[in-house]
Parts: sequence; structure tokens; C-alpha cells
Amino acid sequence: MLIEYKEIIDKELRVFSDKLPPLSIYDPIKYIISNGGKRFRSSLALMATDLFSNQPHLAINEAIAIELFHNFTLIHDDIMDQAPIRRNLPAVHKKWDENIAILSGDLLYAIVNQILSNSSSQSPTLHQIFQQTAVEVCEGQSLDMKFEKLEIISISDYINMIQLKTAVLVACSLKMGALIGGASPNDAQLLYDFGFNLGTSFQIHDDILDVFPNEDNFGKQVGGDIIEKKKTILYIDFLNKASKVDQNTVNHIIDDKQISNDQKVSKVKDFYLKYDVLKVAQESKNDFYNRSMISLRNLSLTDKKKKIVEDFSVLLMNRKS
Amino acid sequence: MLIEYKEIIDKELRVFSDKLPPLSIYDPIKYIISNGGKRFRSSLALMATDLFSNQPHLAINEAIAIELFHNFTLIHDDIMDQAPIRRNLPAVHKKWDENIAILSGDLLYAIVNQILSNSSSQSPTLHQIFQQTAVEVCEGQSLDMKFEKLEIISISDYINMIQLKTAVLVACSLKMGALIGGASPNDAQLLYDFGFNLGTSFQIHDDILDVFPNEDNFGKQVGGDIIEKKKTILYIDFLNKASKVDQNTVNHIIDDKQISNDQKVSKVKDFYLKYDVLKVAQESKNDFYNRSMISLRNLSLTDKKKKIVEDFSVLLMNRKS
Repeated sequence: MLIEYKEIIDKELRVFSDKLPPLSIYDPIKYIISNGGKRFRSSLALMATDLFSNQPHLAINEAIAIELFHNFTLIHDDIMDQAPIRRNLPAVHKKWDENIAILSGDLLYAIVNQILSNSSSQSPTLHQIFQQTAVEVCEGQSLDMKFEKLEIISISDYINMIQLKTAVLVACSLKMGALIGGASPNDAQLLYDFGFNLGTSFQIHDDILDVFPNEDNFGKQVGGDIIEKKKTILYIDFLNKASKVDQNTVNHIIDDKQISNDQKVSKVKDFYLKYDVLKVAQESKNDFYNRSMISLRNLSLTDKKKKIVEDFSVLLMNRKS
Repeated sequence: MLIEYKEIIDKELRVFSDKLPPLSIYDPIKYIISNGGKRFRSSLALMATDLFSNQPHLAINEAIAIELFHNFTLIHDDIMDQAPIRRNLPAVHKKWDENIAILSGDLLYAIVNQILSNSSSQSPTLHQIFQQTAVEVCEGQSLDMKFEKLEIISISDYINMIQLKTAVLVACSLKMGALIGGASPNDAQLLYDFGFNLGTSFQIHDDILDVFPNEDNFGKQVGGDIIEKKKTILYIDFLNKASKVDQNTVNHIIDDKQISNDQKVSKVKDFYLKYDVLKVAQESKNDFYNRSMISLRNLSLTDKKKKIVEDFSVLLMNRKS
């Protein structure tokens, strides 16, 4: 999926990384770049440019900026979430320390802005979309941190949070790519809406897959979110619907050190089934997916090109990436 | 000093702060803005615009962006330095926590970029200067953190660090202000050089004042840097010149809990006098000050306007601010 774009991004990131100054504060940046990643957002930017111009390279600077911005958020999020591992390797704040992680993240965001300010395809509109998105991503992360401490959250607040935290950057990547490719403002906005809704749908899909994996996930650890008591759409819906007794039972199951992880997941899943939380999540997922398809259909692209985007969407939601 | 510009900045910051969304992640931003500050860098931007256009307001967005960027670095620096107090009030990471300080800092930098991207006076050059400076400020902070752990640093490495950490933002403020005011690229660069050298001189001056205050500092706590074992130009010069025995003696004095702070400062000062460290610092300070005056003289401004800038420089270095 998007493999030809990923190859362009990976190559360009290697060139970028090799050119960084020898100062040690750049080491964590070189490290996180070299640790891989799907290059999903940056690939979408190139795809969008390609759709409208057949010249994906036009957006290479913006794509790199988007990819690096995403990595900046990962460095800082891992500190805040105390996540020790990122992409199967020690997170920056663990391999170095928190100070180095804070500062190398700041530096990376400064570099992102430098790349954008030096890009030949820059325009006030591109800057505005990108920086508006950066603000929203920070707001999303703040809501995520806040929600982890709250007992009750509404589904709509949760969806608003995932939209700010992740869907807006997906949407921004597509819109910037489209504009650089010469799309009309209307088409660029339709592609933004497509990405925003698809990103939302994907995030809900991700929550569902953790507990109810499809055949593609066979063999993969199931229920990681349950064990971590992560506020997914399923858990939130359960908390909103369940009796106090059932809520307490689920809490005790998760906290009980005598119960194996597999048993925990199995027991909590029974409660999820009891309250039919899958239904709400799937309806929501399908709703956002359908909205994304409406935006896609309204784009002034050939059916062949729309088919490329639709095929990508289907693949994404089946996670055969 | 620069009081008319400071008033413009303070007023604009209040308007800005009042317009921020009610989300709680904006609270630390409102807090740090309301806690005052000299508004030194932003005032310089307005002054530079005023010098060339007599319309300081033209640079108001950039001045606000510069001021907020400076505050973003303070929020993150205070985490890294574990500084509990900022402007006589609890630092953001103490009043809230480290996560909130990291994220509200990130958000503040995103807002800075948003302001710049929405400003009517934006140009690629302005963006480039600003973001290049942001990268350098991060590099400077990384060197500062690194140097605190090193035993020996050269004076030139130290000066390079303070230039990156502080002088470049002073210089950037003046250059951006000049360009917005319609200065020629040559004048804008001269004002950059002026600010860069004056900023460097001021930083060295600040190191000296801590140990050898002038009459204006009468009554102020002396030797705070000594007690904190801060790597100032004086301490670095001492470490480079002193015998191993004297180095150890000074280290023991500073670490000795039986000795009062006043005694520590007095004893260490004797060693500073023994090795004549004041001379190197003063020569360096004067050298950078003289360089700044050469740039100032070469500006294509009226003598009257140059006099305004020179008077400000004299006031700054005498610290009658």
C-alpha cells in the first residue's frame, strides 16, 4: 500500500539524515528517522500531489516536513505517556534521557518549520493549513491526557479527541499534497474531508481490532488496550452503559495480578458482548467511512484515479498494509 | 528603556491571551504571558520597524511571535534545568506538571508558527530567518546542557553557545523588524550583526555583574552563579587557568555546607582576582560591544536614529533598565 511513495520518502529521509550537523543533539533525530515507520502521512501527501499532477516529487519537502512533524510528536508523546518502546526499539527518552528527548523534539519541530520555509512550493495557505493542524494535534494530545484521568467521557468527546490527535494530520497531508499538485481549493477541501473521516474511521477500527481481530490479525496479541486499561471507544461505551457492579467487576479483573492476560481479555470481552459495545463502535466506524467515500466521489478526478484512492481505503481498513 | 514598545506588546499580549480557547492546555500559556517579562526581544522588533518606517505596529504579529517563542523556550528550559521559579512565580512544570509543561510549550510554538503564517507581512525571507534562529536556539540550549557536564570548555566554545542560545534571537528580532519596516537587505543584516554582537556582549556583561556588580546593583544578591556553580565566562576562564590545587579548593569551598553563601562568594572572588579572570571577560565584552557599534555606524539611518539605538545600547549595558 502506497509503497512507491514510501520508497521516495525513505530515500529522501536518508539524504536528509546524512546532511544533519554532527552536533550530538541531532543523534536522537537520526535515530528516530532510521527506526522506520510506515511513512503513512507523508506517502498520502505524495499520493495527493500525484493524483492532481502526476508528479509526486513536487510535494517532497512538505511530505518530509509532515513525516518529521509526526516523529516530533512521537518523541514528546512517548515522554508524556512514559512509553519505553517505539517501533520495537527504546524510545528516545529511554535511550537518552527526558531532557534530550524534549530538546531534540523541539529541534525537530524547528527543522520541520525550516524545511517548510525553504520549500519552493510554499504559500501562505500551505503554511496556514500545516500550523493550524499542528495546534490541533497538540490540543488532541492534551485531551487524550485529560481523558485518561476522567472516569466518564462521552463517545462524541472521544471522537473529537482522536480527530484532533490523528485525523487532522492525515487530512492536512492530503490537502497540502493536493494543493501542491494544483488541485482547486474545493478539491483540496474534499480530500481534506476524505482524510479526516477516513482517519477517524481508521482510529475506531484500530480500537475494535484490538479486541475483535479479523482473520488478518491471526496470531497477533489481542487485547493490549484492555490490559493497559486504555480508554478506547469500546471501553468508553462500556463505562457509559454498564451497571456500577459490572464496571467494578471489570476494573477488578484488569487490576487482578492473579489472572493471566489472556483470561483478562476473555473476561472483559464477555462484558463488552453483554453491553453490545461492538455495535456502537462499528456503526461509528462505518459512518465515518461512508462520509469519506462521499467526499471521494465528489472529487473532480477521473474514475480511475478515484478507484486508486478507494482501493487504498479498503486496504487500509482491512489492515493488509 | 524601549518602554513605548513594551506597552504596545503588553497590550497586544493581553488581547491575544483573552482570545485563546477555553481548553485547559491553554492555561499555562495564559499564565506565562500574564507573569510579565521585559518583552525585550519583541520590543527590539518594533524598534527596528520604527527606525525604518516610523510605524512600529507593522511588525506587531512578528513581535508577538518572537515574544511567545521566547516564552516557549523558557517553559521547556525550566523543565530541563529543573528551575522551580520563573519571574518570582512557580515555573509551569511546577505549577502544573512536566507533561503539561512539555505539551503547552509545544502548543505555544505551534501558535507562534500559526501567527507567522497568518501575518500579512509574511515573506519567505522572514520565515527563513525566524526558523533558522529557532534551530540555532535549540542547538544553543543543547550546548549549554552539554557544557554543564564537561570539566573543561574553551572560552570560544562558551561564547559560541551563548550566541546560539540568546544572541541569535535578539539579532533575529532586529532583522525581522528592519525588513518589515522596509530596510534594505544590507541594513537588515547590519542590524542583525549589531544585535548579535550586542547580545553576546550583554550576556558576558551579565556573567561579570553577578560577581562584580556595579553601583546600580547595590543591594542585589551577589554571586548567585558562583553558588550554583554555573559555567560563566569567569568560572570557565578560572578553570582554564588555575592550578589543579586551586581548582579543587574552589570546588570544595562551593560544595562546603559549613560555609555561608556570602563567604563562598568572597572566597571564590579572591581566586578570580588571583587569576585575573575579570580582564578576559571585560576584554571580550568590550570587543563584542565595539563590533556592535561598528555595525550600527554603518547603517543607512540618520544620526538621530543611530543615536536612539546607541543610547539604548548604553542603557542596556549599564543595566538601568
